[in-house]
Amino acid sequence: MIDKVVIFGVGLIGGSFARALRHAGAVGTIVGVGRSPEAMARALELGIVDQVAPSVQDAMRGASLVLIAAPVAQTGRILASLAPFLEPGTVVTDAGSTKSDVVAAARAALGNKIGQFVPGHPIAGRETNGPDAAIVDLYIGKKTVLTPLPENAAADVARVAAAWTACGSVIHQLSAQDHDKVFASVSHLPHLLAYALVDDIANKPHADLLFQYAASGFRDFTRIAGSSPEMWRDISLANQAALLGELDSYMAQLTALRAHLASGNGAAIEAVYSNAQQARCRWIEAIEAAEAPPPKDTAE
Amino acid sequence: MIDKVVIFGVGLIGGSFARALRHAGAVGTIVGVGRSPEAMARALELGIVDQVAPSVQDAMRGASLVLIAAPVAQTGRILASLAPFLEPGTVVTDAGSTKSDVVAAARAALGNKIGQFVPGHPIAGRETNGPDAAIVDLYIGKKTVLTPLPENAAADVARVAAAWTACGSVIHQLSAQDHDKVFASVSHLPHLLAYALVDDIANKPHADLLFQYAASGFRDFTRIAGSSPEMWRDISLANQAALLGELDSYMAQLTALRAHLASGNGAAIEAVYSNAQQARCRWIEAIEAAEAPPPKDTAE
Repeated sequence: MIDKVVIFGVGLIGGSFARALRHAGAVGTIVGVGRSPEAMARALELGIVDQVAPSVQDAMRGASLVLIAAPVAQTGRILASLAPFLEPGTVVTDAGSTKSDVVAAARAALGNKIGQFVPGHPIAGRETNGPDAAIVDLYIGKKTVLTPLPENAAADVARVAAAWTACGSVIHQLSAQDHDKVFASVSHLPHLLAYALVDDIANKPHADLLFQYAASGFRDFTRIAGSSPEMWRDISLANQAALLGELDSYMAQLTALRAHLASGNGAAIEAVYSNAQQARCRWIEAIEAAEAPPPKDTAE
Repeated sequence: MIDKVVIFGVGLIGGSFARALRHAGAVGTIVGVGRSPEAMARALELGIVDQVAPSVQDAMRGASLVLIAAPVAQTGRILASLAPFLEPGTVVTDAGSTKSDVVAAARAALGNKIGQFVPGHPIAGRETNGPDAAIVDLYIGKKTVLTPLPENAAADVARVAAAWTACGSVIHQLSAQDHDKVFASVSHLPHLLAYALVDDIANKPHADLLFQYAASGFRDFTRIAGSSPEMWRDISLANQAALLGELDSYMAQLTALRAHLASGNGAAIEAVYSNAQQARCRWIEAIEAAEAPPPKDTAE
């Protein structure tokens, strides 16, 4: 049981965290903090939070756990605002999609209280937002990656892990640097590529003709280009170094594939396509095996 | 009513064409031709075809309409095999994903009978294949693009169009060159990009770690990389010129986006992401409007 949880930003991520903790009976009081009075009033009306704090100082008084679930570009500002009121018994975590930049911002904002900040990233989301989007089961079966700092006490990391576990999430740990490389590869780069393709097509003089013949394959490939441009601009910039590395690797791959295509080297093209198809097939099988319900014990 | 339809290749595409024509009562006899005796026996057993032809010569005797629905790399060979038996009253069409190469192959194979060949491309598919994959409603509401030749008689184009219309498909017409540019852009390039990304990740030393954190966005983005490598190798090579053009355009786009990222130009990144997000949103709205049932006439 966590006595008092404070959530900065009660939208999809923060609101679903609140609903899940409450549903699990894992929390005493939930206090919301946010810049939009309308959103905070709505979160109160929906029963997501018990109170809306009149100030950061009020919110932080006696807090056990603080989750920062605002857009990642605001993390530094929020940490700076709460630092003067951060009591020794409070642990702070976040839900940002990038971690190295958050750690740097936290070190700048918290100074010698940095040990009280445990960086985190729940791997869950959907295309809706705001308090009305918050649902009780967003995190069930989903991974939450924690990237603890050398300064963190084990008990503080455990407190954050226990909260996400109560939400139904599965805890993983990576270094902040590894986290950012991994997500640059499997999430941030695909977003950039999908945005780039749709923008490229939309800027052609015959764009209307092209879109007319785009079908289900195009629809799935570009689904992530329907995500918030502001959010993904921030993520791209926040993870600039790792994303540049992954983009360069991919562009080298395209350059090689272009040469195979230009020279009509069918065997080389098929080798790439076939390796990809098999790797994806193994990945899907691994996912489905992990998601399958455990075999029933039929012994009586 | 078409008296005798001959189908080369009775898998998903050819078999579904047969089932749909039969369901519409639009065909007399359906004759199947194929290289695999097992597949042809299965097509007969499933009632997809009335007869399996013992030879191409037998198949072509008195044929009204011939559909070539074999892998696109076999089109030239099949056309050469049927050319000696092509009677004046027969119209031949195909279902290939590329058209300029098919037209070239048809001109080489058919010579002065080229006017009897009406190139076509039904925009439908799924990830299964073979006679068992054939379904009656594959083409309902889907586009079929015809790319008629200057030598085609209007009545022959109309015969092919009527057959696809009977299957529930909506007829479009483009030049072969425009067709290939359009599909290079909205289909062939996305396939190449998805294969390239999965192969790039699979070849990294820490591929297992990366795949472990890939989630639903990655799954959708790479769905088309689960398609047949052989088929997409053939399509890539068949549409080499147009695909190279689209790939170069896309790589120039990535190069520009990389420069924005490297210089931390958030406004330029957001402009690309935002234009893409809005264009995709308009496209989805247009699709949904086109797919919505017509408003009911409530006047009595």
